[in-house]
Amino acid sequence: MHDFLMVLDLVGTFVFAISGATLGVRKQLDLFGVLVLSFAAAVSGGIARDLLIGATPPVALAQWHYLGVSCAAGLVTFYRCDDVERLRNPVQVFDAIGLALFAVTGATKALAAGLGPMGAILLGMLTGIGGGMARDILVARVPVVLQSDLYAVAALAGAAVVVAGHWLQLPGPPVLLAGALLCFGLRFMAIRYGWQLPVAQHRRD
Amino acid sequence: MHDFLMVLDLVGTFVFAISGATLGVRKQLDLFGVLVLSFAAAVSGGIARDLLIGATPPVALAQWHYLGVSCAAGLVTFYRCDDVERLRNPVQVFDAIGLALFAVTGATKALAAGLGPMGAILLGMLTGIGGGMARDILVARVPVVLQSDLYAVAALAGAAVVVAGHWLQLPGPPVLLAGALLCFGLRFMAIRYGWQLPVAQHRRD
Amino acid sequence: MHDFLMVLDLVGTFVFAISGATLGVRKQLDLFGVLVLSFAAAVSGGIARDLLIGATPPVALAQWHYLGVSCAAGLVTFYRCDDVERLRNPVQVFDAIGLALFAVTGATKALAAGLGPMGAILLGMLTGIGGGMARDILVARVPVVLQSDLYAVAALAGAAVVVAGHWLQLPGPPVLLAGALLCFGLRFMAIRYGWQLPVAQHRRD
Repeated sequence: MHDFLMVLDLVGTFVFAISGATLGVRKQLDLFGVLVLSFAAAVSGGIARDLLIGATPPVALAQWHYLGVSCAAGLVTFYRCDDVERLRNPVQVFDAIGLALFAVTGATKALAAGLGPMGAILLGMLTGIGGGMARDILVARVPVVLQSDLYAVAALAGAAVVVAGHWLQLPGPPVLLAGALLCFGLRFMAIRYGWQLPVAQHRRD
Repeated sequence: MHDFLMVLDLVGTFVFAISGATLGVRKQLDLFGVLVLSFAAAVSGGIARDLLIGATPPVALAQWHYLGVSCAAGLVTFYRCDDVERLRNPVQVFDAIGLALFAVTGATKALAAGLGPMGAILLGMLTGIGGGMARDILVARVPVVLQSDLYAVAALAGAAVVVAGHWLQLPGPPVLLAGALLCFGLRFMAIRYGWQLPVAQHRRD
Repeated sequence: MHDFLMVLDLVGTFVFAISGATLGVRKQLDLFGVLVLSFAAAVSGGIARDLLIGATPPVALAQWHYLGVSCAAGLVTFYRCDDVERLRNPVQVFDAIGLALFAVTGATKALAAGLGPMGAILLGMLTGIGGGMARDILVARVPVVLQSDLYAVAALAGAAVVVAGHWLQLPGPPVLLAGALLCFGLRFMAIRYGWQLPVAQHRRD
C-alpha cells in the first residue's frame, strides 16, 4: 500500500511538473526557468502546507525524489515540447490523478499535525492547487484555478471526505480511496462536460 | 474588552474580505476565485505574521471564524456586487478600522513572540497591509499599497505607537487605543484630503 | 574573518536593495513602495530560507541592520535615481558579489540546520536569487532570473561547492571562498560575454 502511494505521489509530481514546464516553454523562459516552473508547479502546494503546519524542512526539500522527478519532467518537456503538447489529453487525466492524490494526502497530513476539520480541508485543497497557483504567479498571470473549471472544488470535496472519515473514525485506506475517487471523478466530469462555476454578473461602468 | 476586540477583528476581516471579493468580481473570476480572493485579502497579513514568528498553524487556519466571515463577505459581494460598489465610502471607513486594528494587534503579537522593536513594527504593518498585497498579487497587478495613498504609513505609525508604549512599559489597553486611533486618523485624513507620498522624478530615456 | 563577512553581507544587502529601488522608481511607485521593493529585494531570499529551515523569526527581521541598510539604499536611489542608473556597471559587479556571498552563506546555514546536500544547494541558490524574484513578482513581471543570463546557475554552482566541501569534510573558510569565487566568476563572465542558457524551440500554432 505504502509503495503504491509513493508511486502515485511521484506520478502526480511528474505530471504537475509537466504543466509547469509546458507553461515555461510557452513563455519563452530559458532552461533554468523551465526547471524552476516544473519544480514550483510540482511541490509548492506541499511546501506551503508544510510551512503552515510547522513541518520544516518541507518534505520536498528533505527528499531528493521530488526534485529529481520534477527536473526529469522539465527536461523532457524542454527538449520535446511539441510531443508533450500533443499528449494534452492523457496529461489532463494524470493531472486529475495528481490533484486527487495531493488533496487526500494533504488533508491526512494536516489532520496528523493536529489541525481542526476546517484547517485540514483547506490545507488538503491547498496541497492540490498550490502548485498551479505558484506556477501562474511566477509568470505573472492570474492563476487559472481562480478563473475557470471545477478544479479547486474537486480538491475541496476530496479533502472533505478524508476529514469526515477521520471525524467518524472510519478506517483510513477506504476513506482515502473514496476521497481520491470523488476528487478524480468530479475533475474528470468537469473536463468531459465543461462543468464550471458561475461568474458574477458585473455591470461595467 | 476581549469580546469588543473580537468583534472589531471580525469586522476588519469582513471588510478586508469585501475588498478582495470586489476585485475578484471585477476581474471576472468565478465563484471559487472570488472566495479565495476574499479569504486571501482578509487573512494573508496575519498568516504571514504567524509564519514569520513561528506560530504554526496560523490562527486564521486554526479557527473557523475567519473563513466563515470571509466566505460570507465573498458571497454577498458575488451576488450583490453592484450594491457593494455603491457602498464604497462606508467600506473605505471600515477598511481603515480594519487596518488600524490589524496593525496594533499584529505588533502586540510580534512583541509577545519576542521580536525586537523594529521587527514588531514591521510585522504590525505587514499584518495590516499583507492581505491587500496578496489580493493584488493573485490577480497579477502591482499592489496598490506600493503606489499611492497614505496607507502603509498609517499602519506603520499605529504599530510604532504600540511598540513605543511597550518600550516605556505603559499599560496595554490605552496604548493599543492610541495606536489604533493614530492609524485610523492618518488613514481617514489621507482619504479625505488625498494625502500621498512623493513619487520619484525619473527622467525616462 | 567574521567582521569581514559581516561587511560583505551588508554590501550585498545594499546592492540588492538598490536593484529593488531602481525597479520601484521605474515603475513609478511612491516612496513607501520604493522602500518595500528595496527591502524585499535585499532580504526575501534569506527570509524564505529561514522559513523553510524553521529558523523563526528570520534574521532579517530580528536584526535592524538589514532594514537600515535597505532603507538607506532605497532613499539614495529614490532621490538620486539618475546618478544610480549611471552607475549600472559597478552595481552589476557588486550584485555579483552579493549573489556569491548569499549563495555560500545560505548553503552553509542550510547545512547547519540539518538539510541534506540537495536541500542545502537549493536553499543556497534560493538565498541568492529569492530577493530578485520577490522584487519582480511585486511589480507583476516575470522574474528576470527565469528568463535570461547565467544568474541562478552561478548561485547553484557556488552553493554546490560549499555542499561538496562539507561532504568531504574540508575546512570551512577555503571552501566558502572557493564557492564564492566560482559563483562570482561565472556571473562575471556571463555579464562580460553574454553567456545564456538555451531557450526551448516551440512551434507557435
